[in-house]
Amino acid sequence: MDIKLLQQRLRLFAEERNWNQFHTPKNLSMALAAEAAELLEIFQWLTDEQSQNIVNNEKEMTLIKEEIADVLIYLIRLSDKLGIDIEKAALEKIVVNEKKYPVHLSKNNATKYNKR
Amino acid sequence: MDIKLLQQRLRLFAEERNWNQFHTPKNLSMALAAEAAELLEIFQWLTDEQSQNIVNNEKEMTLIKEEIADVLIYLIRLSDKLGIDIEKAALEKIVVNEKKYPVHLSKNNATKYNKR
Amino acid sequence: MDIKLLQQRLRLFAEERNWNQFHTPKNLSMALAAEAAELLEIFQWLTDEQSQNIVNNEKEMTLIKEEIADVLIYLIRLSDKLGIDIEKAALEKIVVNEKKYPVHLSKNNATKYNKR
Amino acid sequence: MDIKLLQQRLRLFAEERNWNQFHTPKNLSMALAAEAAELLEIFQWLTDEQSQNIVNNEKEMTLIKEEIADVLIYLIRLSDKLGIDIEKAALEKIVVNEKKYPVHLSKNNATKYNKR
Repeated sequence: MDIKLLQQRLRLFAEERNWNQFHTPKNLSMALAAEAAELLEIFQWLTDEQSQNIVNNEKEMTLIKEEIADVLIYLIRLSDKLGIDIEKAALEKIVVNEKKYPVHLSKNNATKYNKR
Repeated sequence: MDIKLLQQRLRLFAEERNWNQFHTPKNLSMALAAEAAELLEIFQWLTDEQSQNIVNNEKEMTLIKEEIADVLIYLIRLSDKLGIDIEKAALEKIVVNEKKYPVHLSKNNATKYNKR
Repeated sequence: MDIKLLQQRLRLFAEERNWNQFHTPKNLSMALAAEAAELLEIFQWLTDEQSQNIVNNEKEMTLIKEEIADVLIYLIRLSDKLGIDIEKAALEKIVVNEKKYPVHLSKNNATKYNKR
Repeated sequence: MDIKLLQQRLRLFAEERNWNQFHTPKNLSMALAAEAAELLEIFQWLTDEQSQNIVNNEKEMTLIKEEIADVLIYLIRLSDKLGIDIEKAALEKIVVNEKKYPVHLSKNNATKYNKR
């Protein structure tokens, strides 16, 4: 199921429950940030190595999948409310990033372009 | 361009810059939360009505599009690192939500299922 | 009990449990952001008016108090690790803000100084 | 300068600018989370070791101090609006944590009490 279909299904979900009253861009930005932070919480005390090995922990992976889904769901809702095509927006940003972070300046160096 | 193609393009972007050393699940969860919070900042002092009218403000919309793109980009990277299909995960979560929030209990009521 | 005493007590708490291995500045910044987002979640679907009336809801206020405490606890731990005096830092920032947001430009206007 | 005095000074700051209209608990929870995320961003690509050595980087430390100050400022404002004594709340939470994380169960183990 692709983004467009997920967007329609989420729109229907909100309409059936009369939840558009809650789904203002402001509130959706809050819900999105709250869900992103739940992912953060899973990783907060792990070493980098432990964070990579988490793929072998079925219980944690189930939780991570749910949190990632929540982030995508609110991102789609917010974008729908604002009339933004998220896949197009991401592609455009990638093109911008390719210019901001040319390979010769960014090899092995993740420093933000304006701090380099 | 769909999620799968964005994922491949982002993977190539990271490989060319040798950025996989930075892109641990832990670090990506941080970058994702930081970007989600930049969206939050845009809306923090706006009334609900102002947050809805923001679609008429071209300058703010350009900024919002970029932040939404950043969230999607890190969400795709994180999912790629963990082997998670985000569209499938979102669909599965929607099915769960339809059960947790049946229309007759959730009409006009966004209270979390475990607080209802 | 003031900040300095809380800081000492939290230091002892971490030492007794041998938790300094987890309390790197990086990890503490994650824990701090995760706790701040739990506050966010409490308010995400409330209107401004409901968010103000929450003071009359004892159950919610107990929860809010705990989340606010968690934010302060991690803020103190992070500052302790980095050798920062948070009360002094806040005072210095207030002085900066008084210059960035002079009354005649900021009256009824919360626009960020660099966007004004 | 202690928390009580900072609180009074911040209250005056908001009154002079007529900013209480913006400082609803909801909006302050957003501002708090946004500032916490700016700390996160500073640490996101650093190794644990680099995050500890940041104390030797004067430029980064200046930035960190400002972000930590911003978090404390919004935490104090939010608590003032809700009538919460943050130092008392933190102390009470520490007492709770001492019970939830007894030394014999938590030594070298930061696992959340409800997942242990």
